[in-house]
Amino acid sequence: MEVRTKKERFTNPLYLESGRILEPYEIVYETYGELNEARDNVVVVCHALSGSHHAAGFYEGDRKPGWWDGLIGDGKTIDTKKYFVICTNTIGSCFGSTGPSSKIYPSDEEYRLKFPVITIRDMVRAQHILFNKLGIYNVEAIIGGSMGGMQALQFGVDYPNFAKNIIALATTHATRPWVIAFNKVASEAIVNDPAFKEGKYNRTEIEQNGFEGLSIGRMAGHISYLSPHSMDKKFGRDYVETDGLYDLFGRYEVDRYLDYNAANFSKFFDPISYLYIVKAINIFDLSMGYESLEAVLGNFRSKLTLIGFKSDMMFMPEEMREIDEAMRGLGKDSKYYEIDSDYGHDAFLVELEKFQDIIEGVLQ
Amino acid sequence: MEVRTKKERFTNPLYLESGRILEPYEIVYETYGELNEARDNVVVVCHALSGSHHAAGFYEGDRKPGWWDGLIGDGKTIDTKKYFVICTNTIGSCFGSTGPSSKIYPSDEEYRLKFPVITIRDMVRAQHILFNKLGIYNVEAIIGGSMGGMQALQFGVDYPNFAKNIIALATTHATRPWVIAFNKVASEAIVNDPAFKEGKYNRTEIEQNGFEGLSIGRMAGHISYLSPHSMDKKFGRDYVETDGLYDLFGRYEVDRYLDYNAANFSKFFDPISYLYIVKAINIFDLSMGYESLEAVLGNFRSKLTLIGFKSDMMFMPEEMREIDEAMRGLGKDSKYYEIDSDYGHDAFLVELEKFQDIIEGVLQ
Repeated sequence: MEVRTKKERFTNPLYLESGRILEPYEIVYETYGELNEARDNVVVVCHALSGSHHAAGFYEGDRKPGWWDGLIGDGKTIDTKKYFVICTNTIGSCFGSTGPSSKIYPSDEEYRLKFPVITIRDMVRAQHILFNKLGIYNVEAIIGGSMGGMQALQFGVDYPNFAKNIIALATTHATRPWVIAFNKVASEAIVNDPAFKEGKYNRTEIEQNGFEGLSIGRMAGHISYLSPHSMDKKFGRDYVETDGLYDLFGRYEVDRYLDYNAANFSKFFDPISYLYIVKAINIFDLSMGYESLEAVLGNFRSKLTLIGFKSDMMFMPEEMREIDEAMRGLGKDSKYYEIDSDYGHDAFLVELEKFQDIIEGVLQ
Repeated sequence: MEVRTKKERFTNPLYLESGRILEPYEIVYETYGELNEARDNVVVVCHALSGSHHAAGFYEGDRKPGWWDGLIGDGKTIDTKKYFVICTNTIGSCFGSTGPSSKIYPSDEEYRLKFPVITIRDMVRAQHILFNKLGIYNVEAIIGGSMGGMQALQFGVDYPNFAKNIIALATTHATRPWVIAFNKVASEAIVNDPAFKEGKYNRTEIEQNGFEGLSIGRMAGHISYLSPHSMDKKFGRDYVETDGLYDLFGRYEVDRYLDYNAANFSKFFDPISYLYIVKAINIFDLSMGYESLEAVLGNFRSKLTLIGFKSDMMFMPEEMREIDEAMRGLGKDSKYYEIDSDYGHDAFLVELEKFQDIIEGVLQ
């Protein structure tokens, strides 16, 4: 399936939770499958921190498909013969939607650190506006993992009549200090890299050579995406260098993995976008402004499906159980599934076979 | 109890596992209590990564006592009325024993990155030589937590007739990739800080202003010393800044904690020592050179007491259970205690009341 990115431009202001506005703003997105005449066969997919709107299919000439291609496509779990699937790049990100690397209209200056702080609610609001513009007023399901799960939950709260089903994986109702601490390491590493230059870094330089600060931050991220057991299986205590165990800078296999993935990542992800997105994750608390989780979940009308992973070290299963218990306490339609997995947080991206039946069940 | 640091200098070479030697070398240490005439009332205490030989008592004018003062002293768990307690600064560290900030004899040049890689076995060998010099040929117990626990276990393997009891807390028999990954973040942050200058940093500058690279590394460390639950209790989602939630650089309480502690730490801990000590921790594998854990534990003659903490995210209880099971499989004297604690890895430093009875029981 070859896909292309689409773009919508909005000239009305987007009112943000912070009180600031984005005006104008753009949202890029991809769609897979065909919208039916009733415009009611829509499945929305929301991406995580480092993800993009490229959820499935191949770009021309590419050998790697979108990040959830195993789930989305002709005859797959989210079947594009039946559903019109849409995935947008969140505002604040760096893959085409308005974010810190966009220009401040009408000047030629990039926002960089002048970009307003955005929240999960803002990301959801912007998507909702896009969907309305596309003539989509309700959808079969909204599905997302990690930060994508936060968006899915927020959709259920802010637009209770919009989605028949909300499916949230490997996520939470409120970011815990444990995750904020990982994000702190990343933010400090980015901001303190002298190449950051208070946000005035040279973009071409970074794209060519990578950006050490983001690379270190991404390493900290990887720790939280994996788990002690998945690392044991993946790396063990294997040692990769040939110059001996007693070389101070000799590396274990896990070091090599971190070096390789983090350096790659820092070449294509904008460090300022990283700061803004982890900030949005830190702020996320579904019940902010409400008295309790129960109080905010009172808004929910969608059927909720929660999928947690036993070894997830970032958003722990207990956090999803709390949502499920609160929902059922309110007499709402909620189901929680806990998947046995050694893959940690990454399971929602790699162990598709362990939860695709659950999603298929919801979509039938 | 006012204490002073003692120092021994050795002019014979210390043969290291790497094949390199230290010559001469010095070991600083502290003692509490009196050595009896039989010289057999000795308890050895081993410190962790960032610890020192200052395990108990106060230095003149100081308001903060040594790191295990709650356990060591007159009438305390490790009773200095009965025992002669000795704690040495490990070689490679930065509190007085020979390490990267020592001078290369007979020149005036500091070792810095020319220092040889040292291992837990090397640390233990150096201590054993010191004890022999002091006329101590066997001891009542060797006790340590975290890297101190590694040393205690290694003592049991390398000098089977030396200690009647080995007590190891919050430790492992082989460092897992999970911990190596945390250490990787720290090492990268240190080495990539431009102030590091390939090890040729200005020491005075660092002592005055701190060292951002080590500070970031220490933040990553703190994550592994705490636990999701201890962070929930300690910080929750409290926000400290007065300039609003929507300030990109606004901080949560957990951010403030990390900033404060990490900045302080980076003023008194040598970044190169940090690199060497995490390297020693990474290398640690009790059964290296043996066919299995069982094979190496075959050497053990000391009675072994293992204390693990349920919420420890650095060295998990299962790692200590493996040691206990291997020991008991060999018919050796071993006991494992698992402590219910929310404090994570730090529990061995803060929740003394939860395990002091166990240590007291061993020492009776």
